[in-house]
Amino acid sequence: MLDQHGSAHPRTLSGTATRGETVPTVPPATPAARRTAVDVTALLERGRTLATPVLRAAVDRLAPPMDTVAAYHFGWIDAQGNPTDGDGGKAVRPALAVLSAEVTGAAPEVGVPGAVAVELVHNFSLLHDDLMDGDEQRRHRDTVWKVHGPAQAILVGDALFALAGEILLELGTVEAARATHRMTVATRALIDGQAQDISYEHRDRVSVEECLEMEGNKTGALLACASSIGAVLGGADARTADALEKYGYHLGLAFQAVDDLLGIWGDPEATGKQTWSDLRQRKKSLPVVAALAAGGSASERLGEILAADAKSSEFDSFSEGEFAARAALIEEAGGRDWTAEEARRQHTVALEALNAVDMPEQVRDRFTALADFVVVRKR
Amino acid sequence: MLDQHGSAHPRTLSGTATRGETVPTVPPATPAARRTAVDVTALLERGRTLATPVLRAAVDRLAPPMDTVAAYHFGWIDAQGNPTDGDGGKAVRPALAVLSAEVTGAAPEVGVPGAVAVELVHNFSLLHDDLMDGDEQRRHRDTVWKVHGPAQAILVGDALFALAGEILLELGTVEAARATHRMTVATRALIDGQAQDISYEHRDRVSVEECLEMEGNKTGALLACASSIGAVLGGADARTADALEKYGYHLGLAFQAVDDLLGIWGDPEATGKQTWSDLRQRKKSLPVVAALAAGGSASERLGEILAADAKSSEFDSFSEGEFAARAALIEEAGGRDWTAEEARRQHTVALEALNAVDMPEQVRDRFTALADFVVVRKR
Repeated sequence: MLDQHGSAHPRTLSGTATRGETVPTVPPATPAARRTAVDVTALLERGRTLATPVLRAAVDRLAPPMDTVAAYHFGWIDAQGNPTDGDGGKAVRPALAVLSAEVTGAAPEVGVPGAVAVELVHNFSLLHDDLMDGDEQRRHRDTVWKVHGPAQAILVGDALFALAGEILLELGTVEAARATHRMTVATRALIDGQAQDISYEHRDRVSVEECLEMEGNKTGALLACASSIGAVLGGADARTADALEKYGYHLGLAFQAVDDLLGIWGDPEATGKQTWSDLRQRKKSLPVVAALAAGGSASERLGEILAADAKSSEFDSFSEGEFAARAALIEEAGGRDWTAEEARRQHTVALEALNAVDMPEQVRDRFTALADFVVVRKR
Repeated sequence: MLDQHGSAHPRTLSGTATRGETVPTVPPATPAARRTAVDVTALLERGRTLATPVLRAAVDRLAPPMDTVAAYHFGWIDAQGNPTDGDGGKAVRPALAVLSAEVTGAAPEVGVPGAVAVELVHNFSLLHDDLMDGDEQRRHRDTVWKVHGPAQAILVGDALFALAGEILLELGTVEAARATHRMTVATRALIDGQAQDISYEHRDRVSVEECLEMEGNKTGALLACASSIGAVLGGADARTADALEKYGYHLGLAFQAVDDLLGIWGDPEATGKQTWSDLRQRKKSLPVVAALAAGGSASERLGEILAADAKSSEFDSFSEGEFAARAALIEEAGGRDWTAEEARRQHTVALEALNAVDMPEQVRDRFTALADFVVVRKR
């Protein structure tokens, strides 16, 4: 799953690929020379282990039937109410939140309420977004609105958002108030991003800049919050918190660029999504907007085809081959390479932001390793 | 509009009415002997005047098109985007919030961020509830989901809720953090109340206690927050804040009891709702559940009729006379008297809660006058 020595591993190299070739989805990690051995699996596990019991206790506060609906959403029970193992996702956010507490010399536990609050906000947004977008599946399961109806998706989303503030503010500290303020601002950005995403669906053309702004809001803002909230709870000053937010914001953009690559060229077995998933959903993701902005014959042909698709009544019955042809055009126009390169650029900016923060070297190494993990993941 | 001397005014007396008689909707106010002259209109106007510019500035922070959708919801513009006068509602909450700041000796302005936050939370809940309930009209206008679609109703609701925390927490004070924590807890109660309201729709019977619990959550919790938030921002201790919350909670229950009376017997011209509005929506409001719980022949007949209505395919084409007959049965079973009496009981408990708080007499008189206003209103 992990590849901490990306530059020495052929599957993580895409810079040398030429158009039309089967380029790997993942961009290279930072040079191995800069790395010390960090066990990312253990780091992710630590965040999960610390945050999950507190998250479960928080969700248990919800009145029935919202507690059950939330437990279904988190994958703790199935639609019939029976306990399930649940894959629980990658858990990058909790890992970042507890790690960021260590920036201030505090114990990772200090970041736990922050990790839980960020998970609550993230899942509030998933519940509402799935309903707004009409998405019927998430993490290989029917979405909440599909199983429990739209009203429960709205209500439980609202309740999780409220719970996030409650969990933080009941700490009763000045640091918790600061953390909640930053989280609230991040949540507004998240909502702005979803609003932009929806508005872009109705437009023929979206610029690369608009796409990056939307992805910065939808993904960057909450990863920024996750990367700094433990530090804020640990008493970090505003400058430190801002720098950690910058790390998380650009890490979020790198994360999203990889997601956009996986959304078109990802292995369905690894991602749990259909082949050409984002193309089937007509998503104006980074590879698409970059390809359309590139100019040249492939770019122009792609533009004509997508414009025709938007009006086509047969789109829903398109064959694998038709999507493969569109993907090939995106690649030929340079959209795939550009996006892989963009993931690397954002990854670099994220790591540079860490330089502005004084922290134990071991903590810095872990931030670096998590950033590498985000860009080399295959799901 | 106001009647501060209810006991001397026949329209505010219902205690002497016998069943079947046309009892007035409004219960009596506290005895005139306890009153000093308070200009409630001026008090409501003060809250509105102080809060509205700050509320508008807060809403202006929203990214397009959410700013426009929110402005439509607040009644500041019409569906075409043209400025309107907008009736803006009764504005009881802002009046309470700025008044509560004066409990601590602070200026009413200290309560303004609290007033704005409470208004934002209230309107977040209206946006989401209207969508969940499928309500097409509010304040004589099409609801947001009807005009701008369900996604905008969800998004703008979310954004207003986030904005509420943002507005308070950017004050950066310990008091603001406490106020936000209390507001968040109130918001969770609000959500619980809506969840209960939805679940009751699918049940044949709801007890009076369940109905009161639901109304305490849906209406009491946020009025409790409005009645204390200014004091919390002004530095009140927890005991004072709790007592003011108790005043607001029971005032909310009195408010809701009056609302439930108006929902059946209110004057459509004053309320802006259809005749027999709550009956048409099959609401299990207080007069209905009290009538069903009362026992006796009218109560039993009402139970049989409502059970048949629940299965009737012709319900939507019922005549005025059919609803009038149901309303008469509710009244005959005692549901109307019980609810009017309940409004008086809650009004009394609310005023008693004020006794636990040390405050300038002028401020106490104003709280009393606002409580009287809430129970004598006709819309």
